[in-house]
Amino acid sequence: MSETISLRSMDSSHVRIGVIGAGFVGGAFVRSLLDPERQVALVDAATTTLEIVGVAVRDLSKPREGIPAALLTDDAVTLVTRDDVDIVVELAGGLEPAKTLIELALRRGATVVTANKALIAEHGTALAQLAHEHEADLLYEAAVAGGIPILRALRSSLAGEKINQVLGIVNGTTNFILSKMTQDNVDYDAALAQAQALGYAEADPTADVEAFDAAAKVQILSSLAIGTALVGESISREGITAVRALDVDFARRSGYVIKLIGVVERAGEHGVSRRTHPALVPIDHPLASVHGAMNAVFVEGARSGPLMWLGQGAGGEATATAVMGDVLLAARNRVSGRHDIPFSVDDRLVSVDVADLSSVFYISLDVIDEPGVLAAVAAVFGRHKISIQSMEQNGLAHDARLNFVTHEARTSDVTATLAELRTLAAVESIGACIRVIGGEA
Amino acid sequence: MSETISLRSMDSSHVRIGVIGAGFVGGAFVRSLLDPERQVALVDAATTTLEIVGVAVRDLSKPREGIPAALLTDDAVTLVTRDDVDIVVELAGGLEPAKTLIELALRRGATVVTANKALIAEHGTALAQLAHEHEADLLYEAAVAGGIPILRALRSSLAGEKINQVLGIVNGTTNFILSKMTQDNVDYDAALAQAQALGYAEADPTADVEAFDAAAKVQILSSLAIGTALVGESISREGITAVRALDVDFARRSGYVIKLIGVVERAGEHGVSRRTHPALVPIDHPLASVHGAMNAVFVEGARSGPLMWLGQGAGGEATATAVMGDVLLAARNRVSGRHDIPFSVDDRLVSVDVADLSSVFYISLDVIDEPGVLAAVAAVFGRHKISIQSMEQNGLAHDARLNFVTHEARTSDVTATLAELRTLAAVESIGACIRVIGGEA
Repeated sequence: MSETISLRSMDSSHVRIGVIGAGFVGGAFVRSLLDPERQVALVDAATTTLEIVGVAVRDLSKPREGIPAALLTDDAVTLVTRDDVDIVVELAGGLEPAKTLIELALRRGATVVTANKALIAEHGTALAQLAHEHEADLLYEAAVAGGIPILRALRSSLAGEKINQVLGIVNGTTNFILSKMTQDNVDYDAALAQAQALGYAEADPTADVEAFDAAAKVQILSSLAIGTALVGESISREGITAVRALDVDFARRSGYVIKLIGVVERAGEHGVSRRTHPALVPIDHPLASVHGAMNAVFVEGARSGPLMWLGQGAGGEATATAVMGDVLLAARNRVSGRHDIPFSVDDRLVSVDVADLSSVFYISLDVIDEPGVLAAVAAVFGRHKISIQSMEQNGLAHDARLNFVTHEARTSDVTATLAELRTLAAVESIGACIRVIGGEA
Repeated sequence: MSETISLRSMDSSHVRIGVIGAGFVGGAFVRSLLDPERQVALVDAATTTLEIVGVAVRDLSKPREGIPAALLTDDAVTLVTRDDVDIVVELAGGLEPAKTLIELALRRGATVVTANKALIAEHGTALAQLAHEHEADLLYEAAVAGGIPILRALRSSLAGEKINQVLGIVNGTTNFILSKMTQDNVDYDAALAQAQALGYAEADPTADVEAFDAAAKVQILSSLAIGTALVGESISREGITAVRALDVDFARRSGYVIKLIGVVERAGEHGVSRRTHPALVPIDHPLASVHGAMNAVFVEGARSGPLMWLGQGAGGEATATAVMGDVLLAARNRVSGRHDIPFSVDDRLVSVDVADLSSVFYISLDVIDEPGVLAAVAAVFGRHKISIQSMEQNGLAHDARLNFVTHEARTSDVTATLAELRTLAAVESIGACIRVIGGEA
């Protein structure tokens, strides 16, 4: 894909913006663009004047603080198809009508800036293709990790670097819950209730705690970090609902902290693993110090070594900052008639089944406290060629808990081990099986 | 400053690079550009083919691993003035002849990419002006924090954001020394000796431990974060040579860790403070977990909230990654005939004297252990209106140590307090006076 100089945009000395949505992010974006104190800085950064010509909302009767009434419209289709709108900023969220509106804008060559993670994860490839066909730009920095400018860094500063691994704490809700469990020694339900009371978790927390949200972000990160097609095979997904207070406690005693991580990892020459799961993170790993609702993305490049970005993953103001970064870039591109950095897809990449990957595992078993149990359990590990790094036994009346940390083991062998352990009369339940990152202790 | 489309560069379909210097960074950059495995990715990211046409070195007889002998030359002036060299990559370091070579290149409109922190801190404004006059680009991502793409983020993604504060751990040597002191409970001299033995510190460590290096990076960060002119009043500079093992120990017991930080901070409407000094950093602050020789830059934006970048601050490979990011951007700009984002300077900014700023302070006094000493010391604090947050007294035979943490206090008042304390017969010495960040406990 070569860059194209379009005379039409070279002529424009003023950039007109249409905004879809005036919720937390949309409202914050509009107010920030209209803030008189920032006018000089914005014009400098955009290399042109910027004007909001319309803000499309569903309900015109709702009060919209800081947005001039004359800008409001409930006719989004007309707004995005107006010839004089150079940049469409889609901040309404959801798949429809967002997708249709974005397609309308791209088809006539307008630049689209969106924070719509679900839409980009699901239809990003098709939309990027449509943008390319119509010489339009599609920018979506705010779709991953809110205010953290990680996508631009992957696309620009690290464009020449071979990224081997991306580990992200990309869901603030689950990081808040796990941080609470760690700090206050409370169990999952209590931490979730607190997160809900403080507005960090929804009444139905499924999208967050079952890692659907994190998986969508992994989808987007992997496309930019290593060039996987935006929509590919599904991402292996494991949430945090099974994490117990005593797992958090075991982690702490062992020098780890439990985090929900999104992973993009090269495996072999053209293999790539994309997954989300809780993990024991060594306390001196940069991700271990990412507290509360903060987000962070850790990148391991072949030459750059470890890099990490940290910041607010949500919140209207922070997310609007990322949207503004995209809008300023879009404005500069329109003024200079240049397009965004071409997006490259590595067609040779294939998904590697998580069952084929190796990891260190923490496995916790509730067993009946009677002689010979440990020997029986150890025999099962041995039969599946899983070597144990450390073991601790905690007695609890006539029950006991066995906590193991394995050496590097194939996931499929661990799965088979757990299946066989479940058949032992002495094993009451498998309390936890959580990956440990950072390799052998 | 408006963007200019230059027809000459629009015509070029192939970008030629001249490299000055083939040391750690220069060698790594050349090898990485010539790496056959990365060719496709580099051409994709550059939107053109890249060719190294010459590598200037001082000593042609030295072996240069991975650099074809035909590329080597000891005539740097001829290389940078060759008409067919589009991008000059200056990785020799030092003020001269680097400055002269860069000026020669900029004068004929070539793009210059440099990792030369000292040169940019000292002559950045003049060179940026020269680049502007000749419609050339001057890029220097690698000059601050090695492989961390922080300058591009400040210049691009955060271009529209009002940055209120930048706190950086931008010197790996001092962070290594302070980390060693913290982890191993050793004093400064022992930690420095270890750093020297491992190659993290020079035989003469002055530039690092007296914070000259960090101050140069603060100079560059402040210009990009808030638009101070690159060369301005000098930066308040305090190194780490006075930090004692017992200060590190006090910090640990109090929930802090001592770090050498570079600070850029707004103070009032147009005031800005630029300084480097050791500081007690709260253990849950993102900067507290930056260990060993790693670098990190923490940014507090008005809307973005806290953001942090972490990565390797030095090392040939990591630094070469940042150089490569600039070279790819430079190549894209030359192909599309576009220039880098205009650099804005806020002429209204004035330096605020560090004496006028307030902070919480940790102050440690060695005193004679006799009745009435605490009362006498407390009276001095009181006379200068400095309020004490906490105090601890450690007896040592007939000596004692008094450790104070103040409430927010004006630096000039603290200086006056220390001067008066020195006159007290019971005060043997002032062991430490170190700022505490994160405000009141």
